Amino acid sequence: MTHAPISRRALLAGATGALGAHALRVTKLAQDPTKVPGSAVTPLGERSPFERPRRIPLGNGQGISYTPLQDCCGIVTPADLHFERHHAGVPAIDPQRYKLLIHGMVERPTVFDLEALKRFPSVSRLCFLECSGNGAAGYGRSRPDLSPQLVDGLTSTSEWTGVPLATLFREVGVKPGATWFLAEGQDAAVMARSIPVEQARDDGLIAYGQNGEALRPEQGYPARLLLPGWEGNANVKWIRRIELADRPFMTREETSKYTDPLPDGTARQFSFVMDAKSIITFPAYPVTLGDRGWWQITGIAWSGRGRITRVEVSSDAGRHWAPADLQQPVLPKCHTRFRYMWNWDGGDTTILSRAVDETGYVQPPVEQLRQARGLGTTYHFNHIRPWRVRRDGTVVFGLES
Amino acid sequence: MTHAPISRRALLAGATGALGAHALRVTKLAQDPTKVPGSAVTPLGERSPFERPRRIPLGNGQGISYTPLQDCCGIVTPADLHFERHHAGVPAIDPQRYKLLIHGMVERPTVFDLEALKRFPSVSRLCFLECSGNGAAGYGRSRPDLSPQLVDGLTSTSEWTGVPLATLFREVGVKPGATWFLAEGQDAAVMARSIPVEQARDDGLIAYGQNGEALRPEQGYPARLLLPGWEGNANVKWIRRIELADRPFMTREETSKYTDPLPDGTARQFSFVMDAKSIITFPAYPVTLGDRGWWQITGIAWSGRGRITRVEVSSDAGRHWAPADLQQPVLPKCHTRFRYMWNWDGGDTTILSRAVDETGYVQPPVEQLRQARGLGTTYHFNHIRPWRVRRDGTVVFGLES
Repeated sequence: MTHAPISRRALLAGATGALGAHALRVTKLAQDPTKVPGSAVTPLGERSPFERPRRIPLGNGQGISYTPLQDCCGIVTPADLHFERHHAGVPAIDPQRYKLLIHGMVERPTVFDLEALKRFPSVSRLCFLECSGNGAAGYGRSRPDLSPQLVDGLTSTSEWTGVPLATLFREVGVKPGATWFLAEGQDAAVMARSIPVEQARDDGLIAYGQNGEALRPEQGYPARLLLPGWEGNANVKWIRRIELADRPFMTREETSKYTDPLPDGTARQFSFVMDAKSIITFPAYPVTLGDRGWWQITGIAWSGRGRITRVEVSSDAGRHWAPADLQQPVLPKCHTRFRYMWNWDGGDTTILSRAVDETGYVQPPVEQLRQARGLGTTYHFNHIRPWRVRRDGTVVFGLES
Repeated sequence: MTHAPISRRALLAGATGALGAHALRVTKLAQDPTKVPGSAVTPLGERSPFERPRRIPLGNGQGISYTPLQDCCGIVTPADLHFERHHAGVPAIDPQRYKLLIHGMVERPTVFDLEALKRFPSVSRLCFLECSGNGAAGYGRSRPDLSPQLVDGLTSTSEWTGVPLATLFREVGVKPGATWFLAEGQDAAVMARSIPVEQARDDGLIAYGQNGEALRPEQGYPARLLLPGWEGNANVKWIRRIELADRPFMTREETSKYTDPLPDGTARQFSFVMDAKSIITFPAYPVTLGDRGWWQITGIAWSGRGRITRVEVSSDAGRHWAPADLQQPVLPKCHTRFRYMWNWDGGDTTILSRAVDETGYVQPPVEQLRQARGLGTTYHFNHIRPWRVRRDGTVVFGLES
């Protein structure tokens, strides 16, 4: 790191130095960029060849891919880096042929095409979307060489645009006794979940926009259910059918999956809401801190129950906690960026973050979560994530298994 | 538009119909997407082949490209659709060789590399960036076949991340008498502007992040000056040098360009702030409304002086005005999405939007702006933009020249 008083002449001399390690990937890298014309305006931009943020994909058709949280700043996730989770691959859907049927306990069973959905009054909101299994890698038998991406990369924030479920429910005339609905996707898994009408009507959407443009295919193009704060799988993608009923449908997804087994042999079912959580994304594996002194600890916090009201950071393995700054505005059910200035003394330590949401709920230590849920569960891991900072500046995931 | 009661069987039968017009561009479009495995998870997403939002580029090295406002929803602009304006092309810069010199009237002239900039406490904020010449096509001799993209596509909103200028100014020890600074880019135009210290210190940044990731090359990679609410050219991209002084530098850009000639032969100079403005992006050319009845009028409003407090819409050529809904949260110096439900009676009319900001400033009619500025100016066109809706449903840009 260069950070020392220097003359302008020395700066300009420095600018004629050797090419960097990435030069081979760059086609037009001039010794002095002021001496050659730059490239022209284009219909569609591309990243600098020096920047290659990538999701980490696992599996094939039944796969997941993780958002590179350690490479992200602010709260918005670029659409092409939004995490993926699908059960039978991403279907290719012609928007001209797309249809959404709403039927069952309604006065007027109706098919909406995409144009019809877009003609209704629309709303947009920034909120997170998180896979219910996010954090699994850091819960049971964990490894020190986990990055934020592999610990928690199944959460992303977008500005979603669509038509409120409440509007569509008024349009079809949902009958008073209808308390649940089936949301069914048109992927090859025909992914389906049962959703309580009352909560979904509060702020649920049929979303067709993401970060200012059409949904990406792997996010449900051309339209998906969006239930802010609820586990990802309930936000059914490529949605083709909503059936109103007076009871849940007990689909394959909610009997074989998406229940949380408990130590006593029972299981939590319909555990929709994602509880408050946070993770430090810097410093974190695989970063090495260059020297002792001031570093900005930063990360994201979020809660499916509303706004984050406080994030506390500990730099001494949990003995003391201090409040972090929250990036304004703090939005409900949305990633919230936190920042905390830390003066590292150069010694071994563990850094932690702890989120509190507007309901007063406090992100629990792992021991508390393990005691409540046991080790057999595979969903809803919102325990505190520790990072161990070692004397040599290396940082590793710090959860003991 | 299909929007009629229909049975599920009819829906499913419909799903086996003929392929749409776009089918040739799609490689894996199944007759029924539930019957074939979808495509696998990927490191980096791509748009649906049915969605091709594009900037419109004009010129070559000294060019501009326009954001497709009519295709955008919400307030965030995808980074690859952010408008461009550069004077000698986009330089290719190796971030390992990037340096920013701050010198002149400072206690400690200093060179910062990118790692040094990133080590300082960072902040992020959503705000618009607008070219000072945005709106020119709709000011003087205008055409009916202008889309929102061509009228106003030189404005975009991103979440920017960087280090506050105030932090860097404290670091180098700006001397009390320093009232202006030069901001100089390292493109082939060596684009340079003089900026008043006091205002820029309020909320100016050296930005290295855009929408959660590194700046795009055409937005100043790896670092740019960001002055929320100020005309785009002052937000110097690829910034390499800041020189503090006690007077403006009168650079080429602020003598030959970026002054606003007035009818009396004088000129406004250093007209940095972008005044309140709005544009309806739907319905607008080249849309054709299919039938009379309810339509959602929507668009964006923004002001360089703070928050938008009100947007009013007229659907009768300005005789009556009614308040539009503003998408929450309304952020200062940021695009604000407005929405207004309009019951079109099927007749000829003109629709208008009018923005008001927190200073009480009201977006003026074009006659008022022409009277104040004359027809010789080429910057700061924030007059009301009309769209003429014709009996046949076609919509054209409605400003008489």
